[in-house]
Amino acid sequence: MATKKMWGGRFEGKNSDVTERLSMSVHYDSRLYRQDIKGSKVHAEMLKDMGILTHDEFKSIVSGLDTVLKEIESGDFNFRSDYEDIHMNIEARLTELIGDAGRKLHTARSRNDQVAVDTRLYIREETEKIESLLKKFILRLADIAEQQRETVMAGYTHMQIAQPVRLSQHLLAHAWALSRDLKRFETFRNMHNLCPLGVGALAGVNYVNNRKFLAEHLGFAGVTPNSMDTVADRDYIADILYASSLLGVHLSRICEELVLWSTYEFNYIRLSDQVTTGSSIMPQKKNPDLAELIRGKSGRLTGNLVSLLTVMKGLPLTYNRDMQEDKEPLFDTVDTVLLCLEGMIEMFKDIVFNKERMSETLRGNFSTATDIADYLVQKGVPFRTSHEIVGSIVGYCEKEKRNFFELNLEELRKFSNAFDEDVLINLDPAGSTERKQSEGGTSLSSVLNQIESIREIVV
Amino acid sequence: MATKKMWGGRFEGKNSDVTERLSMSVHYDSRLYRQDIKGSKVHAEMLKDMGILTHDEFKSIVSGLDTVLKEIESGDFNFRSDYEDIHMNIEARLTELIGDAGRKLHTARSRNDQVAVDTRLYIREETEKIESLLKKFILRLADIAEQQRETVMAGYTHMQIAQPVRLSQHLLAHAWALSRDLKRFETFRNMHNLCPLGVGALAGVNYVNNRKFLAEHLGFAGVTPNSMDTVADRDYIADILYASSLLGVHLSRICEELVLWSTYEFNYIRLSDQVTTGSSIMPQKKNPDLAELIRGKSGRLTGNLVSLLTVMKGLPLTYNRDMQEDKEPLFDTVDTVLLCLEGMIEMFKDIVFNKERMSETLRGNFSTATDIADYLVQKGVPFRTSHEIVGSIVGYCEKEKRNFFELNLEELRKFSNAFDEDVLINLDPAGSTERKQSEGGTSLSSVLNQIESIREIVV
Amino acid sequence: MATKKMWGGRFEGKNSDVTERLSMSVHYDSRLYRQDIKGSKVHAEMLKDMGILTHDEFKSIVSGLDTVLKEIESGDFNFRSDYEDIHMNIEARLTELIGDAGRKLHTARSRNDQVAVDTRLYIREETEKIESLLKKFILRLADIAEQQRETVMAGYTHMQIAQPVRLSQHLLAHAWALSRDLKRFETFRNMHNLCPLGVGALAGVNYVNNRKFLAEHLGFAGVTPNSMDTVADRDYIADILYASSLLGVHLSRICEELVLWSTYEFNYIRLSDQVTTGSSIMPQKKNPDLAELIRGKSGRLTGNLVSLLTVMKGLPLTYNRDMQEDKEPLFDTVDTVLLCLEGMIEMFKDIVFNKERMSETLRGNFSTATDIADYLVQKGVPFRTSHEIVGSIVGYCEKEKRNFFELNLEELRKFSNAFDEDVLINLDPAGSTERKQSEGGTSLSSVLNQIESIREIVV
Amino acid sequence: MATKKMWGGRFEGKNSDVTERLSMSVHYDSRLYRQDIKGSKVHAEMLKDMGILTHDEFKSIVSGLDTVLKEIESGDFNFRSDYEDIHMNIEARLTELIGDAGRKLHTARSRNDQVAVDTRLYIREETEKIESLLKKFILRLADIAEQQRETVMAGYTHMQIAQPVRLSQHLLAHAWALSRDLKRFETFRNMHNLCPLGVGALAGVNYVNNRKFLAEHLGFAGVTPNSMDTVADRDYIADILYASSLLGVHLSRICEELVLWSTYEFNYIRLSDQVTTGSSIMPQKKNPDLAELIRGKSGRLTGNLVSLLTVMKGLPLTYNRDMQEDKEPLFDTVDTVLLCLEGMIEMFKDIVFNKERMSETLRGNFSTATDIADYLVQKGVPFRTSHEIVGSIVGYCEKEKRNFFELNLEELRKFSNAFDEDVLINLDPAGSTERKQSEGGTSLSSVLNQIESIREIVV
Repeated sequence: MATKKMWGGRFEGKNSDVTERLSMSVHYDSRLYRQDIKGSKVHAEMLKDMGILTHDEFKSIVSGLDTVLKEIESGDFNFRSDYEDIHMNIEARLTELIGDAGRKLHTARSRNDQVAVDTRLYIREETEKIESLLKKFILRLADIAEQQRETVMAGYTHMQIAQPVRLSQHLLAHAWALSRDLKRFETFRNMHNLCPLGVGALAGVNYVNNRKFLAEHLGFAGVTPNSMDTVADRDYIADILYASSLLGVHLSRICEELVLWSTYEFNYIRLSDQVTTGSSIMPQKKNPDLAELIRGKSGRLTGNLVSLLTVMKGLPLTYNRDMQEDKEPLFDTVDTVLLCLEGMIEMFKDIVFNKERMSETLRGNFSTATDIADYLVQKGVPFRTSHEIVGSIVGYCEKEKRNFFELNLEELRKFSNAFDEDVLINLDPAGSTERKQSEGGTSLSSVLNQIESIREIVV
Repeated sequence: MATKKMWGGRFEGKNSDVTERLSMSVHYDSRLYRQDIKGSKVHAEMLKDMGILTHDEFKSIVSGLDTVLKEIESGDFNFRSDYEDIHMNIEARLTELIGDAGRKLHTARSRNDQVAVDTRLYIREETEKIESLLKKFILRLADIAEQQRETVMAGYTHMQIAQPVRLSQHLLAHAWALSRDLKRFETFRNMHNLCPLGVGALAGVNYVNNRKFLAEHLGFAGVTPNSMDTVADRDYIADILYASSLLGVHLSRICEELVLWSTYEFNYIRLSDQVTTGSSIMPQKKNPDLAELIRGKSGRLTGNLVSLLTVMKGLPLTYNRDMQEDKEPLFDTVDTVLLCLEGMIEMFKDIVFNKERMSETLRGNFSTATDIADYLVQKGVPFRTSHEIVGSIVGYCEKEKRNFFELNLEELRKFSNAFDEDVLINLDPAGSTERKQSEGGTSLSSVLNQIESIREIVV
Repeated sequence: MATKKMWGGRFEGKNSDVTERLSMSVHYDSRLYRQDIKGSKVHAEMLKDMGILTHDEFKSIVSGLDTVLKEIESGDFNFRSDYEDIHMNIEARLTELIGDAGRKLHTARSRNDQVAVDTRLYIREETEKIESLLKKFILRLADIAEQQRETVMAGYTHMQIAQPVRLSQHLLAHAWALSRDLKRFETFRNMHNLCPLGVGALAGVNYVNNRKFLAEHLGFAGVTPNSMDTVADRDYIADILYASSLLGVHLSRICEELVLWSTYEFNYIRLSDQVTTGSSIMPQKKNPDLAELIRGKSGRLTGNLVSLLTVMKGLPLTYNRDMQEDKEPLFDTVDTVLLCLEGMIEMFKDIVFNKERMSETLRGNFSTATDIADYLVQKGVPFRTSHEIVGSIVGYCEKEKRNFFELNLEELRKFSNAFDEDVLINLDPAGSTERKQSEGGTSLSSVLNQIESIREIVV
Repeated sequence: MATKKMWGGRFEGKNSDVTERLSMSVHYDSRLYRQDIKGSKVHAEMLKDMGILTHDEFKSIVSGLDTVLKEIESGDFNFRSDYEDIHMNIEARLTELIGDAGRKLHTARSRNDQVAVDTRLYIREETEKIESLLKKFILRLADIAEQQRETVMAGYTHMQIAQPVRLSQHLLAHAWALSRDLKRFETFRNMHNLCPLGVGALAGVNYVNNRKFLAEHLGFAGVTPNSMDTVADRDYIADILYASSLLGVHLSRICEELVLWSTYEFNYIRLSDQVTTGSSIMPQKKNPDLAELIRGKSGRLTGNLVSLLTVMKGLPLTYNRDMQEDKEPLFDTVDTVLLCLEGMIEMFKDIVFNKERMSETLRGNFSTATDIADYLVQKGVPFRTSHEIVGSIVGYCEKEKRNFFELNLEELRKFSNAFDEDVLINLDPAGSTERKQSEGGTSLSSVLNQIESIREIVV
């Protein structure tokens, strides 16, 4: 811990041990090594073009950075916590390897813009991975929806059976929600695809540098417009934390259903042995752990977002060290989202749907009551009145412990003269889905249209 | 409280008082009355086109709804909590006014899609107001930046004086952050500009309705693609809560600076009597209350976001009554954001900047130390070495209680032979800003370019 | 809006309209009127004892405050938003009523300690109400547990049937969690029962006042120890927000079960018509709205806590206007908790348990598998081995679509020779609960002991 | 990854790789190894007393566990992620070492109560460490308060100079807030010091075990009262997350002041080189990084609390796998709090206060305006009137750019005839603190009393 710090010119005492421990970040920001080296190479090339580095110095830096990269990837790199972060670690090792040329690399650059460019490159890459898994998951849902297009089940509101729907309509509902997540990630990725490098510590640099060159060679669509904002901004992190947090909520809703549908009582699905686990004490248990774990992950995604918003609240411009607290929630969120999406895809690989049980719950309840009410409307009864009539019939059935399907016409007529023989076909749950001819409804043609649309969006 | 509920057909007992109190929402959702009436009119027109309403019934509904609108806006409407929400209140009053035709209005519609359309219309309108105030505030910042283009002040990192910057660069940094907020609100407004009406309770409706007609006549760009998702979705609320939450963080950062700069110790600005208040006990106090209040509002904006994410987490499809908890955070956030933006604009109306004090703090510290280090680089010293040299000079000055500006060349040479007579101009803070020639830096031309760009974006 | 502010001595311009709107709090803090008047009376009495008020002035103030109280409670009080808050409104009206004596009341007092005392009084009273409802709810659960002591149902882990338990054990589990909430509210109420009045704006007051007198006459256990902390502290609010937030989580878990158990698929309970509602479109629906609403309220309780923590983060001493944002989350949380507890009590008034269905799910699954494993342990098989044996039997049954109960001894012996005739009684779910003789387990004696203990705690 | 799981009896397929990755927790819960081994030893002893283990088996288990402990502490233990968690890792290794006796250890125990006991032991130990550091920090503040008892500085409200206070009063304000944190940690530690071991998976165990024995030998004050609550409860984690979160807010407020007071503009303190760092580009910088980092940590503490509350919301009884998400926030919070407290203590070791500058800002402003107003009250002017008079004087001074102290009696009389010659001593800031004779105020005797009280509380 005795090394002279790179910023140590004016300092006499050494940092306390606790300062070192609170300051250091290399144990987590080391994962930015590729981005850091990439950025440094392009920066060095710009310095060469500006005449600050000779051609030889530039070549020496590039080859030194290649060595560092190799050392890190082979596990031979000695990360030193007294160098605090990945940036200082790489620069120090570079200088060790190539001498004074290494000490020139930080010209016209600050850790503030260096950290920003590394993080933005990282987010861009990881967001692309998230998008790719999201697409894969959406397509899987669409494929299952296609296979299950004839499966009819109960649609729920308030967790009470409401109306018959196609299983595919239900799965596509989730797919559409996920397509909004996809849109959100894409939007944020594009919004922040601007190069921060070259703005220095906060004010710009004392050189006529070429930020457009840096941007182009690092794949950015342009440069950030204001040096102080560039250093003070963490929107690019907040946005991905939020997009992930909302995605997490969507996944938690799907997982809630997987858990629910796996119960003995619902018995709608069977998850494979690959994604379920047992109990250390109860030998019969087969638990939907994966679904539960992913549902639970929603908590940390929201927690990470709250962390960052709380950190940033009330900070004056420009950089404040509090902002070092941005990276751990970012890394944790990215890892979590990638893992959860993999888990979702895996669960839907071998999921088995129990159509018989789905059909059973549909018939046991009054799932077509609305159809009967609409039938009365067609016979000229105002909707509010027909609603009351059918409500009374339901009340009667419950009291008499009878099923809707058992009532004959005569009995129905006691509630309204508008009932006629054609009422009986309106009691059929399967047929009910086909009567939902409204756009986006649960009829077969609507479902097939949706599958086509969502595949187009995702590809 | 004895009224028969519109959904009461099958119910015998009356709801308990506590059920009424927990269920009712009319005390806050009554603000959706305009959207509700607008949606009902278009729905009625569609029902007429479908042959469900006669032309006379349609006309009677429209005129009945106009009466209701007038009653509400004149304060004559009797909101009844036993009718629970604004939707039931309006429908009940309509039926009272026009009879059975009113009871037909709810055909092919559910409260689920009705609530969704009202809320989406509301959000669209309010988002437009937010965008409009945001633009006004950004333009105000740009105007002040233009006026103050020659004012030089200390730029800060870690709240320590770092390098000289233009005040305009600082103000524009905030403007650019706000321009991202603007983009976010616009993006979300467009993303969710889809008509939910016509999907029924969850499955679609038993009619060949015309959702495109509804969408067009309500100004939507299209229809929502899946009935179940439409009912289960609250992304359109979460997104505005998030955009507001991040805007709130940005405002809190500006306000932190206003509070800081208003202190006796900084003394950089003077806020007008219009936006400051006094103390009930200390007669001398002039407090930057408006800035503090807006900074504090950041808490509730984040709290509202957390509320909704927590509510939605783990809810199975489709509608669950928990989701009624979406509206209060939404309304509170919208009101808060509009009020805060008005407050910001007001504070920047008569703000007075104390240029003398700004210049004073610049000179009293070592704000141009980096310029000296860069000067040595130009003389051939590697950056890391020059950084150490200047660091030692600063240490020396602090120990000797001397100012950088007082050192003569001879003294400087004790630290490095590379110093020459031309070093002195590099000590000047004002000149330092002009040396920052990098794009987006604090030079005059960069600042003027930014003002032009941001005005173009905002208009 | 043209009134001279009470703090306006040094001000020239009037506050802008937006400043008024952001500053004013009387629309929500008016609910503190009783506490404010109570505190002012005691303060006036102290001022009289200190010789600052004459006896006549004191009497005049007390009678004036009584008039104000009457005006407010009868609805005749004219709340003026230009007086900002309840404190200024009352003081202004008092002075209007009794003249100069009213202007002396604020001697040796600041709004800072005045607000603090009002809020602490309010919290103490409301916490007592919360505790009282909590006790009532716990007792109701204990009563039902007693009635249902012989009802056996499936205990769940991972929402999968795990082992047979008594329904009473399940209900008592919730009761014990609530007893921790009760403890938390009591602890915080006592921790903060200290009188803040008399510390002035932040430094103490220029008088030898008698804070002990104030404390005693306002029912506090002592005085706050440090004037600056007194003004800067909001722990007493944070603590109640947290206690409520965790209570909200507990209630959400109970409500989740009520919703789940009300499903057609579980069918474990029937909630009364008093606490359920119907659908505006689906006539058959009977939804557990109250349970859903309370489950959803958990979101706002957590949101309110996050609000306050975010507001307070990073605020320097002592009072900052941001802290005005403390009251709305406080009031909202208190109202919410009281309403939710009333709702819980109501739901458990007429809840009906379906014992037949409970017994059915118990037998249909392998709920006593652990009992069989433990049976083998008693026969000398190591637990991990017996666990594997029973696991294999379960796998076999599932593949063969047979029920555990149908297997005969011969079949069982194919899996282990340790099986003997006495195994069969270990298959009985009801008996299983009685074998759980461990303290706190689900045996009858344990349950009855718990009922006794919790009744003692609550009374 | 091919090992047979301990719960694998009924499973055929192997878990997918993603299931393994989502399920495993050994990479973080391995830190519970000491608690796990401690709990297992006591459990084994109880099993021996119950006759389930022979004396030899018991001895073999204890010595096996000792070996495991040694292997872990020496770094020789091979943690296997396919064994998922620390509990399974230890049990598997134990069985490897000692054979079948190891397979008996899990008799009458479940992972559910095992995890709970490990976590409760961990929390108890770590809470004690937190309390110990808190006490140390409070005592340091008290010591400095004693040393600085004669230092007078500006007290602030709204970050505006309000009234003169002693620096010691300011430091003690923080100490008192921290003493509430201490109380909170102690309270929660005691509240949850109950032994969960022995309740089995959820229902109790099929043995007459001795939970009191377990409790006593693990240092608990008693046993948890209900098996299902024991397994479902995570209050003991939520409580420490909350206590830490509020402590974090308190620390953030102190750190905000350290950052503020370190600015060139305030210049109230000088932090040592041990706790400050420099800039990689700006050689003159000396940044209060430690204070900023600790201020920023407040974000993650609140984020961790939100995580857990979100995870637990709406979970039905008893254990759900989501609850595995409890440990990472717990560990992160504990580590963060311990580190932050160490950092605080370190910063206050060598902090230097700049008394001259503190005195300067006091005199430059109108810090004794309230004293003048009170002076007028003593002369018989009602407080509200005297407030207005002094407000006008301040307004006059500001307009004339004059200092309060320069006004002579004649000038003062223009504002009120009540002014007399004795007014001048009321202008003195230092004297003002002594006039604050109210209990808990900023007078010397009050400060000394507080120091005595807080030392008593802490010891």
